[in-house]
Amino acid sequence: MISLPYALDLAGTFVFALSGAMAGVKHKLDLFGVLVLSFAAANTGGIVRDILIGAVPPGAISDWHYLGVSLAAGFVTFYFPARITQRWNPVLLFDAAGLALFAVVGAQKALVYGLNPVMATLLGMLTGIGGGMARDILLAEIPTVLRTDLYALAALAGAAIVVVANVLQLPPGPAALVGAAFCFALRVLAIRRHWRLPVARV
Amino acid sequence: MISLPYALDLAGTFVFALSGAMAGVKHKLDLFGVLVLSFAAANTGGIVRDILIGAVPPGAISDWHYLGVSLAAGFVTFYFPARITQRWNPVLLFDAAGLALFAVVGAQKALVYGLNPVMATLLGMLTGIGGGMARDILLAEIPTVLRTDLYALAALAGAAIVVVANVLQLPPGPAALVGAAFCFALRVLAIRRHWRLPVARV
Amino acid sequence: MISLPYALDLAGTFVFALSGAMAGVKHKLDLFGVLVLSFAAANTGGIVRDILIGAVPPGAISDWHYLGVSLAAGFVTFYFPARITQRWNPVLLFDAAGLALFAVVGAQKALVYGLNPVMATLLGMLTGIGGGMARDILLAEIPTVLRTDLYALAALAGAAIVVVANVLQLPPGPAALVGAAFCFALRVLAIRRHWRLPVARV
Repeated sequence: MISLPYALDLAGTFVFALSGAMAGVKHKLDLFGVLVLSFAAANTGGIVRDILIGAVPPGAISDWHYLGVSLAAGFVTFYFPARITQRWNPVLLFDAAGLALFAVVGAQKALVYGLNPVMATLLGMLTGIGGGMARDILLAEIPTVLRTDLYALAALAGAAIVVVANVLQLPPGPAALVGAAFCFALRVLAIRRHWRLPVARV
Repeated sequence: MISLPYALDLAGTFVFALSGAMAGVKHKLDLFGVLVLSFAAANTGGIVRDILIGAVPPGAISDWHYLGVSLAAGFVTFYFPARITQRWNPVLLFDAAGLALFAVVGAQKALVYGLNPVMATLLGMLTGIGGGMARDILLAEIPTVLRTDLYALAALAGAAIVVVANVLQLPPGPAALVGAAFCFALRVLAIRRHWRLPVARV
Repeated sequence: MISLPYALDLAGTFVFALSGAMAGVKHKLDLFGVLVLSFAAANTGGIVRDILIGAVPPGAISDWHYLGVSLAAGFVTFYFPARITQRWNPVLLFDAAGLALFAVVGAQKALVYGLNPVMATLLGMLTGIGGGMARDILLAEIPTVLRTDLYALAALAGAAIVVVANVLQLPPGPAALVGAAFCFALRVLAIRRHWRLPVARV
């Protein structure tokens, strides 16, 4: 049996991998390219976080389940892209759930490794958005998270709640739930209502 | 009170962050994207250096001052881009100063961590140019340092002076001053006189 | 005297650096940019592998021979690009040899550092293809390995043979030879016969 947080982590990995695979299919990558994008979109955030906090080899490298789940998402998308496209709205919901989960788990892991509260918050956010950034850089595009609707801010808020609770010595379990729920709700609302951050007037 | 080298390091971080933020504003990134570019342009060189020499967590991650200074530069640029543009010539001067400082400090840190002289020189250069490369990659552009006027060479020269002084067991303080001054002067002259490296004839 | 594997490793580094330098020359980079692409194309795969398995500073950073060989390839390509272009078919053969070598050596090093078989195979492949990916990202292009003919698959096969032999406790020397030969043959056949992986139908 596997624990609930671990199962959720793998579920988040699967959904993020779907987004990477879809982007690869749209850019006419071959099967290998699609699988690389699946893995990169799902795991780069966590891998970079682990390298930065000194947790090597990173979890996504030493535990092959992350690879397996990423490849499964890649194969499904490669051979049945229409089915994924048809279900894109639920995929977006799952993506918001994955973002919430990664942000909370990432912040917790950074705290465990002794990072200060400000940086633990940012590393939680990075865990959530790093995969999408890697996906876009591999496709030679400006990461959408740098100009899209409240994606990163939702991750930042979720991570911040976990870290503030830690500073205040509140119990970590409920804090994680509240952080993830807040991140998820903010992200879903941002999609539905097209909330965006401002752009500078030059 | 903070030491002079530390204050200079933060000053260099601020100027490099300005260059990242200006690039983000020009590419119509949202506020978050501009702040990410600020941080990346100012800190990626040092972060990559620290990962390569095994100094984790990197200074720019464990010490939140670098983040704070980067974000300050990002906010100023985002809300008052015209004021930064008007002062672009002084910004270029400060950028040359930041380059000199980062190259010298980066080479010194690599020496402290036992790197050999050749690689310490290169890591000094990388500390100076890595941020600008990350900025351009995030914007899906070929890094300007790969085809521009003596930017990297100035950093290389400054770092080399520090390393050669170390090999010859000369006192490190004056060596750092000479290295930084030489890098700064070479960079400013390259801007004024449009010195460039050759391009291959194909 | 240097050992045969080390000499082969440096030979692979030289050929990979040629591919980076040629790409830089074609994109009109200046001399410095061409040298950066030489080093990046030849060494990024190994550097990322070493960071991921915790072998810091990476071999390509602590041992300056890799730098020297990379720069030599860069200078030759920069000043005599026509001579490299004329010999592009032999260069492709050497590139296949470099791929075979890097994949096998990379997988072996990951096994030594205790990675599980699945990830050791992938890190072997990454050692082979990482440099080419870095080269293309620096040029703001989608990595060709994500959509080209069996390049990555050949590296994967070579690494897998080494890892399977390790799991079955077969002698490592012959396994490395077989793995490298298989990778080389597969890559050369893929070039000659234009074998490609499928692309998804959307």
